[in-house]
Amino acid sequence: MSIKSRAAVAFAANQPLQIVEVDVEPPKAGEVLVRIVASGVCHTDAFTLSGDDPEGIFPSILGHEGGGIVEAIGEGVTSLAVGDHVIPLYTAECRECKFCKSGKTNLCQAVRATQGKGLMPDGTSRFSYNGQPIYHYMGCSTFSEYTVLPEISLAKIAKEAPLEKVCLLGCGVTTGIGAVLNTAKVEEGATVAIFGLGGIGLAAIIGAKMVKASRIIAIDINPAKFEIARQLGATDCVNPKDFAKPIQEVIVEMTDGGVDYSFECVGNVNLMRAALECCHKGWGESTIIGVAGAGQEISTRPFQLVTGRVWRGSAFGGVKGRTELPGYVEKAQKGEIPLDTFITHTMPLEEINRAFDLMHEGKSIRTVIHF
Amino acid sequence: MSIKSRAAVAFAANQPLQIVEVDVEPPKAGEVLVRIVASGVCHTDAFTLSGDDPEGIFPSILGHEGGGIVEAIGEGVTSLAVGDHVIPLYTAECRECKFCKSGKTNLCQAVRATQGKGLMPDGTSRFSYNGQPIYHYMGCSTFSEYTVLPEISLAKIAKEAPLEKVCLLGCGVTTGIGAVLNTAKVEEGATVAIFGLGGIGLAAIIGAKMVKASRIIAIDINPAKFEIARQLGATDCVNPKDFAKPIQEVIVEMTDGGVDYSFECVGNVNLMRAALECCHKGWGESTIIGVAGAGQEISTRPFQLVTGRVWRGSAFGGVKGRTELPGYVEKAQKGEIPLDTFITHTMPLEEINRAFDLMHEGKSIRTVIHF
Repeated sequence: MSIKSRAAVAFAANQPLQIVEVDVEPPKAGEVLVRIVASGVCHTDAFTLSGDDPEGIFPSILGHEGGGIVEAIGEGVTSLAVGDHVIPLYTAECRECKFCKSGKTNLCQAVRATQGKGLMPDGTSRFSYNGQPIYHYMGCSTFSEYTVLPEISLAKIAKEAPLEKVCLLGCGVTTGIGAVLNTAKVEEGATVAIFGLGGIGLAAIIGAKMVKASRIIAIDINPAKFEIARQLGATDCVNPKDFAKPIQEVIVEMTDGGVDYSFECVGNVNLMRAALECCHKGWGESTIIGVAGAGQEISTRPFQLVTGRVWRGSAFGGVKGRTELPGYVEKAQKGEIPLDTFITHTMPLEEINRAFDLMHEGKSIRTVIHF
Repeated sequence: MSIKSRAAVAFAANQPLQIVEVDVEPPKAGEVLVRIVASGVCHTDAFTLSGDDPEGIFPSILGHEGGGIVEAIGEGVTSLAVGDHVIPLYTAECRECKFCKSGKTNLCQAVRATQGKGLMPDGTSRFSYNGQPIYHYMGCSTFSEYTVLPEISLAKIAKEAPLEKVCLLGCGVTTGIGAVLNTAKVEEGATVAIFGLGGIGLAAIIGAKMVKASRIIAIDINPAKFEIARQLGATDCVNPKDFAKPIQEVIVEMTDGGVDYSFECVGNVNLMRAALECCHKGWGESTIIGVAGAGQEISTRPFQLVTGRVWRGSAFGGVKGRTELPGYVEKAQKGEIPLDTFITHTMPLEEINRAFDLMHEGKSIRTVIHF
C-alpha cells in the first residue's frame, strides 16, 4: 500500500519546484524505503532543473545529497534494517559487477541503465502524483520526505552522526576530497592547484590539507570565496581577472614550472585545459571533477601529454559508497571534515526554490533542506 | 685540431641530403667524440627534413638512432673512456637536475635549451663545412662518421652487442617497449590496443608480449603490416578501412567494453582520440607516443575522463638512457627484443636518400646505415 509523502516535484524544466503530496509505493524486492531527514541542494540539481541537462527527465523528484532513516525494507534485503541511518548513493556499489570487482573504479554499473531513465531496477517508478508516474532522479530523489532506493544504493552510517550535516557527504564534499585522496592520490609535500571554489573545490582544499600538500593554490574569479578557502587550508588565492596572461601561465610562474596536481571543479572546458597546462612538465597530473555542458569538448596540444602530464577525471571522488562513505562520516564526526563550513543556509522543504535562487546568486555554498 | 668526417648534410628543407666531408672539432670539456658505426633512419628525421618540423634548423646533420665507439674524450669526462661502445641519447640523463632527481620522469632538462637550437651546451657547433657552421640535430647527428655529444647524452653498452643492430634502441624500439613497460606499466593479463604498426607500434607489441598481455590488438590501415605484427605477438589485427563505424566502437565491441591500455604510435590527433575512446570505462589508460604536426590539438568529451579513462603520453618510452638502455641492449642480446625483425634494409651512407624514399613508400620498417 502506498504512503503519502511531501515532495518538491519538478514538473517541467526551468519552472519552480512544486511542493505537493506524492504517493510512494512500498519497496519491492531488493529495495528500501527511506525517510529523508535532510538534503543538500547541489548545482547538479539546478543544472537538470534548468533544462540544459540532456538526460533530464520530467516530471521528477530531484535531490541526491541526502541523509535518512530506513523506514521499511523489501524482500531479500539483508544489509539494512529498519531504523538504520543511511546516505543515498547515486553511484551504487553492488560488489558483484565487472566494475566493482575490478578494484580499479567506483563506477558500479548494476543499476546504471534504469537509473539513467529515472526508474527503479525493475523498470518502474515508485512515485506518482494524481495517478501519474513521477520519475526518480540520479537514483536518489532526496527532495521527498520518503523515497525508495535499491539496497545497493545506500551507505549505512553511524547513528550518532547528524544527518542534517553528513547528508553533504552524499555528493559534493566526498567528491572533492575523494578526487584528491582516491583519484589523484596526492602525496605529502605536493603542490596543488584547485580551479573553482564551490562546494567541490572547497572540499578538494580539505583533501589537499588532509594529505599535507605543501602548497594549495585556490583559483576563482569571485574573490569573496578566498576567505573561506584560506580557512580551509589554501596557501595562495588567485583571481584570473587580476592577470592579463592566461591563468595557466600565472600558475606555472608562481610554482617554478607548474603544480604536481590540479583539479577542475567547475565544469568549464577552458578551465579544464588551463588546469592541465598549469601542471609541471614530466609528472603533473590534472583531474577533471566538474561536469561540462552537453556536447562540449576539451582540447590541448598532445605535446602537453607527451612531455609527461596526465589527464584524468573523477566521479564521486572515486569513492565506493557502501565501503568508504562510513569512514568519511567518521572523519566528519572527528572534525577532520568541517561540514559546518559548507552549510551557509538551512530551510524547510517548502522554501526550496529559495535555495536555488541563493545558488544562482552565488550567495550560498550549500543550503540544507530540513524535512 | 678538427678531423674530417663523411656526413650526410641537410643543407635545406625538402632537399636530398648531400654526402660531403665536414670538419668536426675535438670534444670540449664534458664532451665526447664518437665514431658512428651504424645509424637507423627514423620518421622523425624525415619529418624534420620535410620542412614541416617548426623546430627544424638547416644546414644540419640529421640522425638520432645510432651506435658508435668513443674516439676521444674532453676534459673532465669520467664515465666514458676511449674504446667504449655507446648509444647516443636525444634525451640526456644528467642525474642532477630537478627532473632527473624527481624519480618521476626521464625528461632531463640539462642540455635541452641548446640542443633545441642545434648547438652544444656551450652554445656553439662542432660541425662545419667550408668554414660555415653546420648545426647538430637532436643532440645526436648520427648521419656523420664522427659526431660530438655531451657525456650525459651517451649510454655505455656492452662491447659484445652488435652496434649495427642495437643502434635501433636509440629511438623507436626503446620508445615503443618503454611506453608499455615504464609509462603505462601494463600488467600481465591486460588487454592492449596498438594504433599504427611502424617501428614504434611494432615495438609496443613486443612490450605487451613481454608483460604477458592477454590480448594485443594491432591496428593499421596497411594490412601488409599484419603478418609481422602477428609474428611479434599481436593476437588480433584490425584494419579500420574494413568497418563503416569509427574504429573506437569496433574495438569496444571486440573487447566487451574496451581495452585496458591503448597506444597511439602514429602522431595523428584523430587516432589519439580513437585510442582514448576505445579504452574501458572506469580504468582504461591511453598513452600517446606519436608526435603530431605543429599546432594540431587533441580533443574529446570530458565525460570520457570523468568516467575513469586516463590520457597520458610518453617520450623515449619513459626510459632513462644512461641507466636503463644497457638493460635493453642485454634484452636484445638474449633475444627478448628481436631487432632483426625491424631491419628491412641496410646500406652505406652514400645511399641514404634511398632510405628516405623507402620509408615514404612504406616499404621499410627500418633502414640501417652502415658507415
